Amino acid sequence: MLLGAQPTIDPQIRHRLQTADGTVVVARDLNRFTTFCHEQRDRYAGLVIVDATADAEVASRYPAWLAAGIHIVTPNKKAFAGDLTLWEAMHDATRVAQAAGRPSHVLHESTVGAGLPVLSTLNDLLATGDEVHTIEGIFSGTLSYLFNRYSTVAGDAPPFSEIVATARQLGYTEPDARDDLSGADVARKVVILARVCGLHLSLADFTVENLVPAALQDASIDAHAFLTRLAESDAAMAARQAAARQAGQVLRYVGHVDVAARTARVSLAAYPASHPFASLQGSDNMVAFTTRRFPQPLTIQGAGAGAAVTAFGMMADLLRLQRSVVRC
Amino acid sequence: MLLGAQPTIDPQIRHRLQTADGTVVVARDLNRFTTFCHEQRDRYAGLVIVDATADAEVASRYPAWLAAGIHIVTPNKKAFAGDLTLWEAMHDATRVAQAAGRPSHVLHESTVGAGLPVLSTLNDLLATGDEVHTIEGIFSGTLSYLFNRYSTVAGDAPPFSEIVATARQLGYTEPDARDDLSGADVARKVVILARVCGLHLSLADFTVENLVPAALQDASIDAHAFLTRLAESDAAMAARQAAARQAGQVLRYVGHVDVAARTARVSLAAYPASHPFASLQGSDNMVAFTTRRFPQPLTIQGAGAGAAVTAFGMMADLLRLQRSVVRC
Repeated sequence: MLLGAQPTIDPQIRHRLQTADGTVVVARDLNRFTTFCHEQRDRYAGLVIVDATADAEVASRYPAWLAAGIHIVTPNKKAFAGDLTLWEAMHDATRVAQAAGRPSHVLHESTVGAGLPVLSTLNDLLATGDEVHTIEGIFSGTLSYLFNRYSTVAGDAPPFSEIVATARQLGYTEPDARDDLSGADVARKVVILARVCGLHLSLADFTVENLVPAALQDASIDAHAFLTRLAESDAAMAARQAAARQAGQVLRYVGHVDVAARTARVSLAAYPASHPFASLQGSDNMVAFTTRRFPQPLTIQGAGAGAAVTAFGMMADLLRLQRSVVRC
Repeated sequence: MLLGAQPTIDPQIRHRLQTADGTVVVARDLNRFTTFCHEQRDRYAGLVIVDATADAEVASRYPAWLAAGIHIVTPNKKAFAGDLTLWEAMHDATRVAQAAGRPSHVLHESTVGAGLPVLSTLNDLLATGDEVHTIEGIFSGTLSYLFNRYSTVAGDAPPFSEIVATARQLGYTEPDARDDLSGADVARKVVILARVCGLHLSLADFTVENLVPAALQDASIDAHAFLTRLAESDAAMAARQAAARQAGQVLRYVGHVDVAARTARVSLAAYPASHPFASLQGSDNMVAFTTRRFPQPLTIQGAGAGAAVTAFGMMADLLRLQRSVVRC
C-alpha cells in the first residue's frame, strides 16, 4: 500500500510491497521501486498495489506496474483525469501484460463518488451492451451541501457567502474554499466518467463554470481574505437564485456527460422542484445514468466523500480483484 | 439456459446444457438432467446454468447442480424466498463443491429490482465489513406506479380503484391485479434481502399488508369482478390518503428489513413530502441501505421490472462469473 506524505507515517513504509509470503519491500525511491517491480515480475505479478495517495508522480508509474502484471486499486484521480497519454499508456500496459500471460487490472471505484457503486454500475452497463446516453450528477459533497442549503424552493436561506463561511468553519470545504468552488474536482470526475464511456476527453475540452468571482481568483488573495470578500458577489448569486425560484426551480452544481454528442459540461444550473437533484439532502452525491434500457435514469445517491466510504470503495475493488485472480 | 414453458419455444430446448466445445445436452426430464450433471461433473463443472424460469421445481435442483460444480445465474425468486431448507441446502452444496475443488456460485441480482445493482451493492457492503442497519424500499414497479399516481401532496388523484383499472388496461399489473396488491412479490424480495444479511427469515415470519379488501380475497371472485368491486373500498383508501395529506405526507407501499432487530415488514406507510420515496416517478423501484458507513442512506433507484433490465442483471452476473472463473 502506498500512502501519501503524511508526517505521522513512518517514511520507511511510504512505498512498500508486502507479498503473500510476508516479504516486505520498502522503497522510498519510485524509480528504483518500479525497476524492482519490472525485474521481479515473474515473482510479483498478480500482487496488488493500493495507491492511497493523490500524487500525480505515483500515478505516472501505473503503466510500468501494470505491464509487470501488478494490479492497482486506487482513489487517486490524477491517474485517470490527467493527460490522455497516461490513460492510453495504462490501457496499452494491460494489453502487454495480458499478452505476456500476466493479466493486470486497474480498479478505481473511489475516484468518482467514493464508495458509491458508480463506476462498477457504469462498467456493467457498458459490458452488457447497453447504450449510455447521458450521465448527469452532483459529484461534490461540498457543493451539494452549499446549494442544498442555499437554493431551496422556500427560498429562505442566508446569503451565499455566509453559507460558504459556515461550511469552512465546519470543515466541509478545503482549507481554501476556492478549491471546491472552482469546480476542478467535479470536472476531473466528469473526465473519468467520459473516458470510461470511451470518449477521448480532457479537462481542456469542455467548459467548467468557476464559482469563484473573477476578481477573487488571484492567488495573492489568501483564503481568509477570499471568504471576507465573497460577500461582494452575494447580490449576483441572489439574482440567479431569485430567477430560478420564480420558475419553481432550484440551483444545483452539476456535471454532465453527453455520450452521443461526445461532450461534457460542468455548471450551476436550475432544476424543477420535482427533479431528484432538488430533494438531495446534506452533502450527498447523486449520479443518474440515462441509457437505452433506462430511459428513466438509473440513479445512485449517498455520501460521496469521507475516509470510511472511500476505503469501502477500495476494499470492494480489492475483493473484486481477489475473486477474479485465481493463481494456478 | 433453462426457459419456462412458453409454447413458442421448442420443448426440445427447454432443458439444455451447451458446453464450451459445442456439445448440447437436451433433457426434458429434470431428474435425468440432474443425474447427468452429477455423473458428468468432472466434465461440466465450471459451466453455468441460466435458469430463466420462475419455477419452484427447477429451483429445487439448484443444490444438486451446485454440488456438481455448476454455477447458477437466475432471476427465479422461488429459489431464495421459499423454504429456508432450500436456501441452506444451496449453501451446503457450494461448500461441498468448494471442498471437492469444483467451486460453484449462485448469482441472482435480478431477483430484487431486476438489473438495479441492489444485491451486488449489499454483498459489497457486507463483504467489506460494513454493518447494515436497515434496508427499506419500494420493490414493486406496479405498486410504485399506483401510489405515485394516487398519493400526491397535491391530492388531486382519481379514486384508487380507477387507477388500478387503468394500470390493468395498460398492462402494468398482473392479469389478476390482486397478485400485485397482495404484496406477496414484495415480501419475497424482502425475504431475499434479509437472508443475504444473514437473517433466517421466511414469509411466514413477518406481517405483509394485503391491499386486497378481505371480502375480495376469495378466489371464486374472478379478476374482472374484483376490479369492479374494488370501488367499494375507495372510501377507506381515501380516508388514509386524506389523513396522510393533512400531515404533509404521502402513502407508499414499502418493504422494510431491520437487520439489528432481525425483523421485517411490508406495509402501506406514510412518508413526508421531503422523503425520497415521495418524489419517486413512474414505476421506479427504490432501495435505501442505512449502514454504519452510510447513516444517511445509500440509495439506488430506477426501473425494477421488465425484460431488458432483468436480462441486464443476468448478463452482469454472467460476466462477474466469467471474470471469477479462470480455467487452469
